[in-house]
Amino acid sequence: MKCEEPIYLDYAATTPVAPQVVTAMLPFLTTAFGNPSSTHSYGRTAKLAVEKARTSIASHLNVKPSEVIFTSGGSESNTLAIKGMLQKQKQGHLVLSAVEHPSSLDAAKQLEKQGYAVTIVAPTSDGEVTESAIAQALTEETVLVSVMTGNNEIGTVNAVSEIATLCNARGIKFHTDAAQGVGHLPIDASHFDLLTMTGHKLYAPKGVGVLVIKDGLTLHPMMQGGQTERGLRGGTVNVASIVGLGVAIELCQTSHAHSIATVRDNCETLLLEAIPDVVINGQGCARLPHISSVQFPSLGIDFSPEMIHGVACSAGSACQSGVGSHVLQAIGKNEVEIASTLRLSFGRQTSEDDLKKAVNNIVSCVNQCSPRV
Amino acid sequence: MKCEEPIYLDYAATTPVAPQVVTAMLPFLTTAFGNPSSTHSYGRTAKLAVEKARTSIASHLNVKPSEVIFTSGGSESNTLAIKGMLQKQKQGHLVLSAVEHPSSLDAAKQLEKQGYAVTIVAPTSDGEVTESAIAQALTEETVLVSVMTGNNEIGTVNAVSEIATLCNARGIKFHTDAAQGVGHLPIDASHFDLLTMTGHKLYAPKGVGVLVIKDGLTLHPMMQGGQTERGLRGGTVNVASIVGLGVAIELCQTSHAHSIATVRDNCETLLLEAIPDVVINGQGCARLPHISSVQFPSLGIDFSPEMIHGVACSAGSACQSGVGSHVLQAIGKNEVEIASTLRLSFGRQTSEDDLKKAVNNIVSCVNQCSPRV
Repeated sequence: MKCEEPIYLDYAATTPVAPQVVTAMLPFLTTAFGNPSSTHSYGRTAKLAVEKARTSIASHLNVKPSEVIFTSGGSESNTLAIKGMLQKQKQGHLVLSAVEHPSSLDAAKQLEKQGYAVTIVAPTSDGEVTESAIAQALTEETVLVSVMTGNNEIGTVNAVSEIATLCNARGIKFHTDAAQGVGHLPIDASHFDLLTMTGHKLYAPKGVGVLVIKDGLTLHPMMQGGQTERGLRGGTVNVASIVGLGVAIELCQTSHAHSIATVRDNCETLLLEAIPDVVINGQGCARLPHISSVQFPSLGIDFSPEMIHGVACSAGSACQSGVGSHVLQAIGKNEVEIASTLRLSFGRQTSEDDLKKAVNNIVSCVNQCSPRV
Repeated sequence: MKCEEPIYLDYAATTPVAPQVVTAMLPFLTTAFGNPSSTHSYGRTAKLAVEKARTSIASHLNVKPSEVIFTSGGSESNTLAIKGMLQKQKQGHLVLSAVEHPSSLDAAKQLEKQGYAVTIVAPTSDGEVTESAIAQALTEETVLVSVMTGNNEIGTVNAVSEIATLCNARGIKFHTDAAQGVGHLPIDASHFDLLTMTGHKLYAPKGVGVLVIKDGLTLHPMMQGGQTERGLRGGTVNVASIVGLGVAIELCQTSHAHSIATVRDNCETLLLEAIPDVVINGQGCARLPHISSVQFPSLGIDFSPEMIHGVACSAGSACQSGVGSHVLQAIGKNEVEIASTLRLSFGRQTSEDDLKKAVNNIVSCVNQCSPRV
């Protein structure tokens, strides 16, 4: 007897690879396996494919192909942007929000230990990082500001274009982690000096990402070796996954975002109907279409998402499993509130039918676990 | 009319992915797509697969699974080992050879700029990095020595176990870049504090590698974020490629190395028969089975491997395309000698028939390009 697969409501943790992406990747694992740095025909074929993907990504993001630097994923892109900008000089000031991805926050911690100044800006109780909060944190020494496009736990969308304009007017560079933004929101990366994206949140494989670096901007490279990626990122280029990323971003053009937001709204409506005291985090703000952060006040500290039968979802982000959410902490949630929060995230394969089943299971579990009198 | 594909003699630049590896990877791109950091069943399935691959690699290298840290490839592993060891403290001395991979040499350059002491050890004219040359470079301040297992251009194999013993006896840590070693030579990584390997040299995909880090040894991490890989390497784990690497290393067990060395020897014999003044670099030393570095004294500065019809091979390494070989320079070759050198490298798909055709084409080209009287 085969157990039925749980309904997957964790697309913010990772997505399956789209079938068209797998199909596009396969030749570059098998027959067209050349190293793009090689000058013979095998190398040229691989290089052409990488450059085609670069052009596709650049066009989607409204930047030049030369501004697209391939990395191993979002964490590398964030680290390269933040450490790379600060470490160009011996000192400097970094501003980032308290709800950034752990890779950005950890890069900031390392920099602080090395003597750089770091200011961490608190979000609103909806998880928004406001322009005015950033403005207050800027100093004469500020080199870089990093604020994510959309939060990976709550889904709050920040006014990053406005923050970028504010920073640039003061001669400060601006980085946005758009790992959860690209593919879900229209993103014009030409507004930013640096932008992070990653493959596995948008139906491309894990292990590939991009750092958009504005032409003319240099960074202290994290790893070198060879002349790849404008000398800013060494290592043999991950051809098949890059080809996959190029196709995946094209598939996002035919946007599923609207219908996914509908699924998300239906989910929240159904939950609120069944459990009227549910708290939807970030509801006062613009939100990413695919993420819902819901807190159940009747639940206690012992609750965990594994207790829900037949639904695969998470407490916070996958990266923070077992650590507790720094994001929910930053918006002022206490330990019990954090323990009783679920992140539900939706994707192309989330059917209305699955959603109803999942909500039923969540509601049953919440009711069962709630010590009502 | 379809042109025939050139004969691929550039396996040292990159290999195709073995069909069994592609088959093993596919489910982890499609149905089993979970994020191994997620605690639900999709995550657990992915995590189990990653841990199975880790165990397979550890067993092949004779280390503990906990000592296998997944990275995006050889360049990242080299950089993490070298910068990670030195940057644990504010100062220290690094020793490495002049024939290391550019990623190692570039990491050393960055460290030197940051105030660390660096000694670069010259190889012999065969490209060997000797124990005595390393011994002479050690000081009281030496933190790390890095010497590659086998050179990627000439194929020279170094006595790295002996060098490791020498270093460890003096309390110095030892790193070996075995990107061209694993899969070609029997490697016991338990001899080393740190060992680099990469997927795309052994019929696994590009974009995945390993740094073996001895249990108990800590490094200054290059990128963090999340609790992945002992906290030493952040980012969502590249599940499909890691699964591929685990299978690829098992395929190396049924070793093709012996037959590949035979192909290499036949190639050199045929070349010497046709062009008696051919110089085989590194011939005085133990060599990797799959690489042959051959210099044609009759050729001039204008020669380039693209002039050979129907053969895909390279001048030096792919990473250094267009830059000129720092390895051949280090063994004392002049500009003309470097320009007239070919790296031929062999793999599982190199048939005797292909080899004969390739040698014929090389010989024709060399004779045509040589201004003989």
